[in-house]
Amino acid sequence: MYRAPVGEIGFTLRHVAGLEEAMARGATGDLTPDLLDAILDEAGRFADSEIAPMAAGGDKTGAVWRDRAVTMPPGWRDLYHRWIDGGWNGLTGPVDHGGQGLPTSLSAAIYEMWNGASMAFGIGPTLTLGAVDALEAHGTDALRATYLDKLVSGEWMGTMNLTEPQAGSDLSALRTRAERRDDGTYRIFGSKIFITFGEHDLTDNIVHLVLARLPDAPAGVKGISLFLVPKRLVNADGSLGARNDVFCQSIEHKLGIHASPTCTMVYGDGIGETGEAGAVGWLVGEENKGLACMFTMMNSARLYVGIQGLGVAQAAFQKALDFARERRQGRSAVPGTTDMAPIVEHADVARMLLTMKALVGSARAIAYSCGHAIDRSRQDGEDRRFWAERASLLTPMAKSFPTDVGVEVASLGIQVHGGMGFVEETGAARLLRDARIAPIYEGTNGIQAIDLVTRKLPLSGGETVRAYIAELEEIVTSVEQSNRPDFGRSSERLRAAIAALRETTERLLEWMARGETGAALAGATAYQRLFSLTAGNCYLAKGALADADVPSRAALARFMAETLLPDVHALSAEVMDGGESLRAATVALN
Amino acid sequence: MYRAPVGEIGFTLRHVAGLEEAMARGATGDLTPDLLDAILDEAGRFADSEIAPMAAGGDKTGAVWRDRAVTMPPGWRDLYHRWIDGGWNGLTGPVDHGGQGLPTSLSAAIYEMWNGASMAFGIGPTLTLGAVDALEAHGTDALRATYLDKLVSGEWMGTMNLTEPQAGSDLSALRTRAERRDDGTYRIFGSKIFITFGEHDLTDNIVHLVLARLPDAPAGVKGISLFLVPKRLVNADGSLGARNDVFCQSIEHKLGIHASPTCTMVYGDGIGETGEAGAVGWLVGEENKGLACMFTMMNSARLYVGIQGLGVAQAAFQKALDFARERRQGRSAVPGTTDMAPIVEHADVARMLLTMKALVGSARAIAYSCGHAIDRSRQDGEDRRFWAERASLLTPMAKSFPTDVGVEVASLGIQVHGGMGFVEETGAARLLRDARIAPIYEGTNGIQAIDLVTRKLPLSGGETVRAYIAELEEIVTSVEQSNRPDFGRSSERLRAAIAALRETTERLLEWMARGETGAALAGATAYQRLFSLTAGNCYLAKGALADADVPSRAALARFMAETLLPDVHALSAEVMDGGESLRAATVALN
Repeated sequence: MYRAPVGEIGFTLRHVAGLEEAMARGATGDLTPDLLDAILDEAGRFADSEIAPMAAGGDKTGAVWRDRAVTMPPGWRDLYHRWIDGGWNGLTGPVDHGGQGLPTSLSAAIYEMWNGASMAFGIGPTLTLGAVDALEAHGTDALRATYLDKLVSGEWMGTMNLTEPQAGSDLSALRTRAERRDDGTYRIFGSKIFITFGEHDLTDNIVHLVLARLPDAPAGVKGISLFLVPKRLVNADGSLGARNDVFCQSIEHKLGIHASPTCTMVYGDGIGETGEAGAVGWLVGEENKGLACMFTMMNSARLYVGIQGLGVAQAAFQKALDFARERRQGRSAVPGTTDMAPIVEHADVARMLLTMKALVGSARAIAYSCGHAIDRSRQDGEDRRFWAERASLLTPMAKSFPTDVGVEVASLGIQVHGGMGFVEETGAARLLRDARIAPIYEGTNGIQAIDLVTRKLPLSGGETVRAYIAELEEIVTSVEQSNRPDFGRSSERLRAAIAALRETTERLLEWMARGETGAALAGATAYQRLFSLTAGNCYLAKGALADADVPSRAALARFMAETLLPDVHALSAEVMDGGESLRAATVALN
Repeated sequence: MYRAPVGEIGFTLRHVAGLEEAMARGATGDLTPDLLDAILDEAGRFADSEIAPMAAGGDKTGAVWRDRAVTMPPGWRDLYHRWIDGGWNGLTGPVDHGGQGLPTSLSAAIYEMWNGASMAFGIGPTLTLGAVDALEAHGTDALRATYLDKLVSGEWMGTMNLTEPQAGSDLSALRTRAERRDDGTYRIFGSKIFITFGEHDLTDNIVHLVLARLPDAPAGVKGISLFLVPKRLVNADGSLGARNDVFCQSIEHKLGIHASPTCTMVYGDGIGETGEAGAVGWLVGEENKGLACMFTMMNSARLYVGIQGLGVAQAAFQKALDFARERRQGRSAVPGTTDMAPIVEHADVARMLLTMKALVGSARAIAYSCGHAIDRSRQDGEDRRFWAERASLLTPMAKSFPTDVGVEVASLGIQVHGGMGFVEETGAARLLRDARIAPIYEGTNGIQAIDLVTRKLPLSGGETVRAYIAELEEIVTSVEQSNRPDFGRSSERLRAAIAALRETTERLLEWMARGETGAALAGATAYQRLFSLTAGNCYLAKGALADADVPSRAALARFMAETLLPDVHALSAEVMDGGESLRAATVALN
């Protein structure tokens, strides 16, 4: 059973991501180290004792659709209500709507626990977080007054309705349409697919945020508007009114996250209780500026998906380590022993487990650092733009790396279990099934790589990424200066990786500047991995420097630097190739 | 739906694995190029039109256990009987027992098709193949007379009963016991787990080959004997007699291959019809020499598991390519186009598909080459030992590389499908679920790596592996001498990879010679991957040299050499490290 790694989470937040320094500066409001520890402890307790025991049953039963209603697995409604009663939904919510205004980095860390205990549970409330962000930034006073309190408390949940069958990653092809009404409201018609938690019985109302197109809208992404469409209309006194004309037509039968209903939503079929066809909606932000509103939510939504991968990866590592310590097979290589050895003593099993641990630790550091950058971008100060760009730069990596790691680590976790890993009751297989969606949704990891290379590298003329790489290099210099033998060849290897990162970065910037986008795109995924491995390994070293008394930190940073990090040079070769071999080889796909 | 890549399979068999030359020498009996093509075409037709349509249903219903009986999914018994009626079970079987005595390489190629159409279907008959091999090599005349004809025709199926709960990969810990009876038979008592096709309704009898221990047997693997235990005893006239005292107690609920029943078998519970407790068994080979009999089957059993990974990988590649050609998203990067482009035109999708194709092609070449080596090791001639050692050398790679590739390619296949890949109806997810077991069973891929490094490299004092590497280098020399620009930097990259392969090989041999097994084991998995990538890429180049008119072959070999192959240098660094960083890091697992 999952046990939240509370100590490691707190350590990474404080000493790697930057929260310690922020607390010392008094930039985190009421949040002190003691309060932080208390919150993490309590979240860990809830994740371990309340959520984790529901995960296997939730997977087995799954969400069930019948007559346009979705029933969640037994006990999940109660679980959700215990969770919101604990105040967990409003951690980052605005204080004037009942939230606690805590940092995003802390929230991300806590979401690691919810997702580690059950990704199908953890995913739901992140959609509500997105709805809160959108309303807070772009909603009218009336909308905010009606919806924010309940979305912050979790009494109602939110959804994001983007995807349509013909428009997956490509929002310019959206067809859902919105018609203006004289009272300032709109009527929405169309279908949306892959809507996470689009329908369920956890809450009495569901607040959909829906992208649609007005009749006179320009073509493409500049003609998209954002609307709020509640499942039930809300009366002036806040009580629930008529059933709106939006229904769940079906849910998907998926590889994993079975307890997370993935809905096809139909707007405007004329079967609501409003007396007319068309789902009643309210504009959020300006007409045709829906995409800008979406971007408000994008950084943190992507971070929270990264956190899903991280949570599952941690759960998989822990489960595999537990198994490897118990399971005995073969003779030990430890001198003087004759008994069967726990398989953790076999070199290849230890290699798998250390690979898992290094990847999880790096992914955690990158994700939390991105959360910290988001927090600082929201604080007043002259460095606000610096941090906003830092957050933008880190977001594609914070989404892609932990989600790739989620799949890799869950798959290694099965391998460590041997035949038992393939048996569903063991639980290792579920983690792979759950993890497999995270590299896909909220922008596939390939799209993250395109975003990183074409939009994030050019920020401030390349100075944003250069400053970040320089910071990473400072860590390496500190490793060198520490003269600690337990870092092995870490600094040499990290230095070489940073050189490769710098070289590929400059080359990509050059290509982008010259309009040679094709060359830049071909190596985008390789670059994203190169960057993430390098940054992640630097962060492991940073942690080891901050906590010199724990020898395992330096040993793990060294293991990564000496065995996983050398990959960056192959990745660098792929980037520098500029897609020449890729272009030549497309003939093999004809 | 799966379409067997008959042309590619035939090409690889003939021009890469060596069958063309063997046919020219007349070393393949009646097998001529025309007959080869006819057999492959017919197998492809059966795989495409008979097996593939049953795969999704087989996955959904799965094998069902009730009252110690296992019911296969609807239609599977008929499917199996159409398959054996087509003579497919006896391809490699001994001619004097009704088999066709065809080469293992051809059989392996055909099994790629069965597994590509449905791995759950393809796996069953490979157990029968193992039973045929064991009986042919070690069975008494009486046993051969009673069982071989029916196992060769497929009227009865075979199983391999090795694993016990306390003894997974470690056969020395087996506890199943065998008692001698005065009539020369034995009685077997004990439990076995993870027995593939241990019980089912495809055939009226099932022939179990069971490892067990005699009361006076030495401890460890030198005290294991092999027994034949039929589900139903066979009367003197060949008709079926009493139900033997062996029953299926349960089947596993697994991640994938749902239509392949994975059974817990109980021997000697006293509920058969023989009038006494203990399953009646007959010794195969000599007492306490059971492991030697197992080794007879091991090379080809491992090859056939590799073929499972290959078949699934090919199916996943094909499905993803079909989707990527149809699915339109985003603007094309092709100049002059404005419509939405098929996603295959996007660089990152093309990169994924080419990676899949290169990995599948390399895995195919390695597996078929191993099959060819097995064939030549069975032919008379002074080079018999050479080929036996070549087969031994290639076996761990032929098992591990295609099965790792199966998981990697199936996972990439899901990614290419985007959100649709996570929906079970698409079928991409099933391929990952099925593929995930192959790196585990028949010796985990970690165990293959240990076998490669500790037992295969030292063959003939290292000359076996050196001769093989020299052959790979000859391919590179031919690439160089071809002066073809479409090979790009292939020969340079391949040359560098071979240098790394040679250096790591010599280092490992040195360590083994000095008894520094720990250093050798730590890098075994990295070495196995390094070796496989290098050999696989050389084989792609060999195919391109043999078929200069098809530009896609050289382009694919080049793509692999320039983007995937550079990994070998990171892997080489890991091997040369000798486990130093691994040993230092084990503190992080405490």
